[in-house]
Amino acid sequence: MQETYSYSALYSFTNQVFLKIGCNEKEAGIATVSLLSADLRGVDSHGVARLPGYVRLWEAKRINAKPFIKIVYETVSTAVVDGDAGLGLIVAPFAMQVAIEKAKQAGTGWVSVKNSNHFGIAGIHAMMALEHDMIGIAMTNASALVAPTFSKERLLGTNPIAYAIPAGSEQPFVADFATTTAANGKLEILQRKNENVPSGWVQTQNGEPSTDAHELKKGGALLPLGGDEQHGSHKGYALGAVVDIFSAVLSGANYGPWVPPFPAYVPMPANMPGKGIGHFFGAMRIDAFRTASEFKLHMDQWIQRFRSAKTTAGQPRVIIPGDPEREAYAERMQHGIPLLSPVVKDLKDLAERFGVAFSS
Amino acid sequence: MQETYSYSALYSFTNQVFLKIGCNEKEAGIATVSLLSADLRGVDSHGVARLPGYVRLWEAKRINAKPFIKIVYETVSTAVVDGDAGLGLIVAPFAMQVAIEKAKQAGTGWVSVKNSNHFGIAGIHAMMALEHDMIGIAMTNASALVAPTFSKERLLGTNPIAYAIPAGSEQPFVADFATTTAANGKLEILQRKNENVPSGWVQTQNGEPSTDAHELKKGGALLPLGGDEQHGSHKGYALGAVVDIFSAVLSGANYGPWVPPFPAYVPMPANMPGKGIGHFFGAMRIDAFRTASEFKLHMDQWIQRFRSAKTTAGQPRVIIPGDPEREAYAERMQHGIPLLSPVVKDLKDLAERFGVAFSS
Repeated sequence: MQETYSYSALYSFTNQVFLKIGCNEKEAGIATVSLLSADLRGVDSHGVARLPGYVRLWEAKRINAKPFIKIVYETVSTAVVDGDAGLGLIVAPFAMQVAIEKAKQAGTGWVSVKNSNHFGIAGIHAMMALEHDMIGIAMTNASALVAPTFSKERLLGTNPIAYAIPAGSEQPFVADFATTTAANGKLEILQRKNENVPSGWVQTQNGEPSTDAHELKKGGALLPLGGDEQHGSHKGYALGAVVDIFSAVLSGANYGPWVPPFPAYVPMPANMPGKGIGHFFGAMRIDAFRTASEFKLHMDQWIQRFRSAKTTAGQPRVIIPGDPEREAYAERMQHGIPLLSPVVKDLKDLAERFGVAFSS
Repeated sequence: MQETYSYSALYSFTNQVFLKIGCNEKEAGIATVSLLSADLRGVDSHGVARLPGYVRLWEAKRINAKPFIKIVYETVSTAVVDGDAGLGLIVAPFAMQVAIEKAKQAGTGWVSVKNSNHFGIAGIHAMMALEHDMIGIAMTNASALVAPTFSKERLLGTNPIAYAIPAGSEQPFVADFATTTAANGKLEILQRKNENVPSGWVQTQNGEPSTDAHELKKGGALLPLGGDEQHGSHKGYALGAVVDIFSAVLSGANYGPWVPPFPAYVPMPANMPGKGIGHFFGAMRIDAFRTASEFKLHMDQWIQRFRSAKTTAGQPRVIIPGDPEREAYAERMQHGIPLLSPVVKDLKDLAERFGVAFSS
């Protein structure tokens, strides 16, 4: 039920679609790289499968293909960026670059973003810091699918956080995770297989525990990392809340239940307190703390020690954050990106509509 | 099995003990406030019950009661602080103050600390930012009790993170949590009751799931937030790892399995790669992003919306991070701090040894 497409084929197609909706050449390229990095890194839910969704948001005039993205406030180490309702895929690299430039001057840079849209995967933006020998941080809020501990209502998004940390001879440490027990993409995989989800992933609309993979469509909610209070869900809730506040209350974006939904057919919330969705980025220059070479030696030692830990039964190794995504990247760059049939159909519809080529 | 002591009685006693081991008056006061803030906020495992442990570390010459705490490296927005093996209870407020001063100048301040010791609860240090209309962040590594996902070995501490965020008419948002499913203190409570722990809290020394509250003494390990991979333990592992790296690889402290143990009778690890334990602090001036008054209005709206969410069955309310600790504080300031009999006995021994008064 899947076909495989080369990166270059998907790049060409996606880039043309972004050009067709009105992006300029430079920004179409940036958006394409941002979006497809999810497919390359194995995060299928956030990649080209979402391209039709972005196009629908543009049709609904919720995405501005010709944004004037700008710094609206700044200090030596901080800035607020207004994304002008542009694609988050473009706004995020702009804002992360601002954080990096601030860090060059001040040691660190911190940028809160309002008036943006979904930015793809957080990790790829955080990773921009690596080539500058900086630690990168990226987070975003998202429309509310998650019930805080003891809440029946959905008040938070899956609000991911990513950290990218340089190493020396080792590959960098790159963690990128939703602040929920399981990301929505994992639910969708089990939905397609008609399987139940483990306990602690979702609850019903009445706030009862559930293992139904379709619970979200019935008004249920995802659960914060931890699952229930006994397993620390108040910690996942707090983390998701911090992402929401840093991304939106600091910048002037929408927060909590007021974050605009990704599906264009879902009406916007009433009485929205801000503009668009919010992100938050950080860059810390390693040599604002110690020499990069010293840091990297110790980071290598850290990674080697963890990677060589004795494992539990049946596990070949302890994983360093970033390993699985790097392996997916290598595999998919060489052998192509598998797409499910419904995704292929959606993309073919898009190709026909815009009169652009779509082939493997 | 418990007696209640007034804050002022415990303050006087603790302060005298710190003076007796050689702290100067100012630092004895700071250490006392840091330590007892845990008791006041209901985190009994990190408060005065640990005073004998700190004294034993001083006897073992692992804690220097007359440290020369200093900035050893800095940029406009960053610093590295060397704690000179001082009490973390003193080193942490020093370093957090540096972060705050940096933030006054540069918008944000970020301080990584080496050569320190246990700093009590993270939350109280993060909260120093609040009166300056700043967001405060505090984290620390700790000796290894936690097995990363798929590891049999303990490689991380419970590595807590705290965020303190100002509000307007509402009380501030203060999250302070170990990056494990359950903090060690919760295990100890169940040990005393001879009860099992829930699944997902600990594993055996062979890496098998366990519900034995005594598992740590048998060579087992605490589990990262999430518990197992199916429930996102790789996320808790990544968070604990980030705390370790920010606190120690950035500063030059010990990391991973090389972090010095809190019990003075446990030998130091071999081949330690750094100095002491590490912390990391951040301060972000609200008005480096938007006016504090605007931010606080929205923060109030955020808090009010979450607090008024419809609740799951049997739950009176959705909790805002910081609520339970504030309630404990109010209760204990008024009615005193309950101490378990073994703790009282330890403190009486200490009182006798140093010839200081200990009474309720």
